[in-house]
Amino acid sequence: MNKKALAILMRARMRPNHHTNLALPPISNEVNQLLPNSRGNRSGSNGNGNLNNQRSFEPVRESMHSVILMHKTEVLDSVLNDFSEGYFSLSFENRRKLLITLSKEYDLNRTQVCELIKQYLGLKSPGNEVQSGGVEDECSLSTFYRIERNLRHSLKPVYETLFERINTHSEGLKFLTILRADILSILVEGNIASLRAMDSNLKDKLSTWLTPAALELHQITWADPASLLEKIVAYEAVHPISNLIDLKRRLGVGRRCFAYFHSAIPCEPLIFIEVALLKNIAETIQEVLWDNPPIAESEAACALFYSISSTQPGLAGINLGKFLIKRVITLVKRDMPHISPSRYFNRFSKIYLALYRTFPRLVFATLSPIPGFMPWLISKLASQSRLAEAEDISCSSADKSGLPFYENILEPEEERALIDSLGDLTAGKSGMEILLNVLTPTTHDWINSDKLLSALKSPLMRLCARYLLQEKKRGKALDSVANFHLQNGAMVQRINWMADRSEKALSQSAGIMVNYVYRPENINEYAQSYFIKGHIHSSDDVKRYTQPLTENECKNS
Amino acid sequence: MNKKALAILMRARMRPNHHTNLALPPISNEVNQLLPNSRGNRSGSNGNGNLNNQRSFEPVRESMHSVILMHKTEVLDSVLNDFSEGYFSLSFENRRKLLITLSKEYDLNRTQVCELIKQYLGLKSPGNEVQSGGVEDECSLSTFYRIERNLRHSLKPVYETLFERINTHSEGLKFLTILRADILSILVEGNIASLRAMDSNLKDKLSTWLTPAALELHQITWADPASLLEKIVAYEAVHPISNLIDLKRRLGVGRRCFAYFHSAIPCEPLIFIEVALLKNIAETIQEVLWDNPPIAESEAACALFYSISSTQPGLAGINLGKFLIKRVITLVKRDMPHISPSRYFNRFSKIYLALYRTFPRLVFATLSPIPGFMPWLISKLASQSRLAEAEDISCSSADKSGLPFYENILEPEEERALIDSLGDLTAGKSGMEILLNVLTPTTHDWINSDKLLSALKSPLMRLCARYLLQEKKRGKALDSVANFHLQNGAMVQRINWMADRSEKALSQSAGIMVNYVYRPENINEYAQSYFIKGHIHSSDDVKRYTQPLTENECKNS
Repeated sequence: MNKKALAILMRARMRPNHHTNLALPPISNEVNQLLPNSRGNRSGSNGNGNLNNQRSFEPVRESMHSVILMHKTEVLDSVLNDFSEGYFSLSFENRRKLLITLSKEYDLNRTQVCELIKQYLGLKSPGNEVQSGGVEDECSLSTFYRIERNLRHSLKPVYETLFERINTHSEGLKFLTILRADILSILVEGNIASLRAMDSNLKDKLSTWLTPAALELHQITWADPASLLEKIVAYEAVHPISNLIDLKRRLGVGRRCFAYFHSAIPCEPLIFIEVALLKNIAETIQEVLWDNPPIAESEAACALFYSISSTQPGLAGINLGKFLIKRVITLVKRDMPHISPSRYFNRFSKIYLALYRTFPRLVFATLSPIPGFMPWLISKLASQSRLAEAEDISCSSADKSGLPFYENILEPEEERALIDSLGDLTAGKSGMEILLNVLTPTTHDWINSDKLLSALKSPLMRLCARYLLQEKKRGKALDSVANFHLQNGAMVQRINWMADRSEKALSQSAGIMVNYVYRPENINEYAQSYFIKGHIHSSDDVKRYTQPLTENECKNS
Repeated sequence: MNKKALAILMRARMRPNHHTNLALPPISNEVNQLLPNSRGNRSGSNGNGNLNNQRSFEPVRESMHSVILMHKTEVLDSVLNDFSEGYFSLSFENRRKLLITLSKEYDLNRTQVCELIKQYLGLKSPGNEVQSGGVEDECSLSTFYRIERNLRHSLKPVYETLFERINTHSEGLKFLTILRADILSILVEGNIASLRAMDSNLKDKLSTWLTPAALELHQITWADPASLLEKIVAYEAVHPISNLIDLKRRLGVGRRCFAYFHSAIPCEPLIFIEVALLKNIAETIQEVLWDNPPIAESEAACALFYSISSTQPGLAGINLGKFLIKRVITLVKRDMPHISPSRYFNRFSKIYLALYRTFPRLVFATLSPIPGFMPWLISKLASQSRLAEAEDISCSSADKSGLPFYENILEPEEERALIDSLGDLTAGKSGMEILLNVLTPTTHDWINSDKLLSALKSPLMRLCARYLLQEKKRGKALDSVANFHLQNGAMVQRINWMADRSEKALSQSAGIMVNYVYRPENINEYAQSYFIKGHIHSSDDVKRYTQPLTENECKNS
């Protein structure tokens, strides 16, 4: 592309344009809240608006009814088009009304369910005592299976038919993701049991339809259409892309970007991953985003996954990334033959053995945020400090260790260093209270004080390791990103101090980032032991943070 | 392609080669019964074979068990590969054993179902009387929906999990079609209720996964890989393709071939349709298959669908052709701009109106077999003649019209002409008995006698029209091909005497073929009235066959 064309591209707005046929944006989609047009719909619920709303609501409700009632052999196309167009024209209030109507009035026929249950309970079920053989047996068994099947069908909510029919439409899956995004944003405002039940039904359906076999992996390059690239810019959720130069850098030499697509959600990357080829596992995000010029790819020894973004709010809770990393590892390897000499030489040949040590081996690692660390730490500190206050009358402020449920999460040396760093300001306060006071303000003033920084490093790194390796919920890592990588078969390799100084990273994890490492030969084993025993594999370096300090280390700290 | 290359291709065997990774053929697949290797598996159920069979059966059963038991977050790839490879290595007997085991031992947990039914019946269901509002209401409703959901899940057979997991595999859908083909061929041997229930479950699943939105329409041309073309040759079910020259002809000038594909069943055309561009609606299949050289496409006034073949026995009963014809009509139209001038000129412009009459309008028609006509007619004649024999003692052989259920399906003139044409050979026999005797032998000697031919034409054409327009089952046309086209929105245009003299066509329909016509502007209307009222649209010419002859016509016949 010449300079002029690029300049024109850069002047164009950097936002996706969704206005294709079936592809209108959900009102709840964050990206699209940037667009003035779609926000406008949210208003208009007063005065004349009400009448207009009512007028636009009824036809859509009727077209929805038609879609559900039509017999399956009829031609649905035009009815489905009517409904989807109608739906997209509705205000948020009317979408809400329609979806609640759908969840309540197009649920089960419970009279029929009860009738079938009665029939079902009256039959003898096929147990082990029934030997195959007699024709009569097979006959009564057939009846049994038929009624069981009818019962199963009767328990299927009517709205499932609507979802299935929309899915037969060429861009139906896209419509359904938007529908679910709307359901989720209604549920955020308050729980509605019928709607929650409908959401869980739709989520199950979407999971089946978005099976990995139906997803297509595509490498995003600078040769892709601008309409696709601007979506990558808009959807990047981890490290915002500031302009097209930044984007071009992320698709250029030493970088890769891969996205999953589905044929029924055309031109929409559902999830994408960005990879940097580096000499070493990066410790800070600056190394990844600002290493200009990049190293030659032939010098790379590490493929670093530095950003993974899910793009569709309507697909929340559906694990699309499951097979993504494994497939990307295969693709990157294939693409860098100098890294895997075994592709070219027999593993036991002399030439392979001679060259083996001269070839660097590619390490697959991530540089990941720890989004739950600070929320966890602050809530922990706050609850301890409330506990302490409540019991303050009976105890001295310095020693609360006798309290039930009270736990001083700071080591004595750490507490001392903290108090020292702040001097008189800490009068009478415990280390945890000080920590809470320092970390709570969203201004993050602490990063400007060298003294405070050095006092905070030791406890924050230790507590971060504890958070990653030991804090669990139902046997799984509490941190969502950690859980994602661990269930994919990664291990916790290293945590990095001041790895990302952005506002967001300071709020999420006090600027700490973590490297997970994927060892292709251990992926399956690690994934299984994490799943079965909740076992989190980690390097000795990270483990050491969570073990009591030795005397020697105490002196050094 | 040069002559030499073509000659080599033509010497190659004309059968598909299925031996890819997951893609081994079902033992029951007709096409593959041609291959000696796959038939071999069917033997080996005696002597040492039994022991070997047992030895190969257990590991496959175990790998199937593993696939079902694994948690969804585990990595299934290798286990699924084990199972599919194992399955394909089994003999027919062992596949049968495995599938019956699956249907019986991996069914529901019925104790759990009963337990949940008990809980469910104990709850108050959300009726109209429940107003949205109170938090407590929403809470008890949530419980209700949760238990209802659990009940729904508990009614899901365990083997559904197996099917869903296989479907996540990249060529899983292909494996599932083969599995179902095997189930169907076991059920042909005898009914097994549990297996029948499992089949209906798998069929439902396959229908969902093979939704039209997931199917891709591809025009097959001579530029396609030979591996695909040989499949078209092997799968052509209506008018066998004799060699590559014949195939090249069907993909050349004045011809089109379109196929539906699914990404998870790679390189397999699931259903395909062949189209001929002709001057008129063809009356005989010879005109279509042997018009050499073809007319120039610019002279075509009719796009004739002369062959539609479903290829996968495992997809029996799943209507893949539903949207095929509509989509093909659109594609053919787009491809022939001279036929649809409205694409290029405004419909009301002077130039359009001036040219309108000079442009031929493209008619979309079929030349279709009537596979059920002779079976229906012969069974009708046989039952009437049994009825007549039973009552023979009390009645004269000439007049049986007084018998209950007895119906002389021949007109008096037709009966007279038949008796005349055969002379003394018919002594004492009724017209229907003679017809039965003439039509039953598979040697079809009647087509060699001009006298007989002319005597048969009138009754057979009339009865064929009656069969197509009036004989129904549950409100739908009895003939499967007729039902297919009518539900797609076609009308019955014309029936053609001696349209196909092949062995197969003589057995199916005494050589008669039918033209269905699709009028794009009526497709939806006709499909709906056929669906709702069972109404079969037909031309006056065909209707006339089914009406009583006028006096004038009697004289002429």
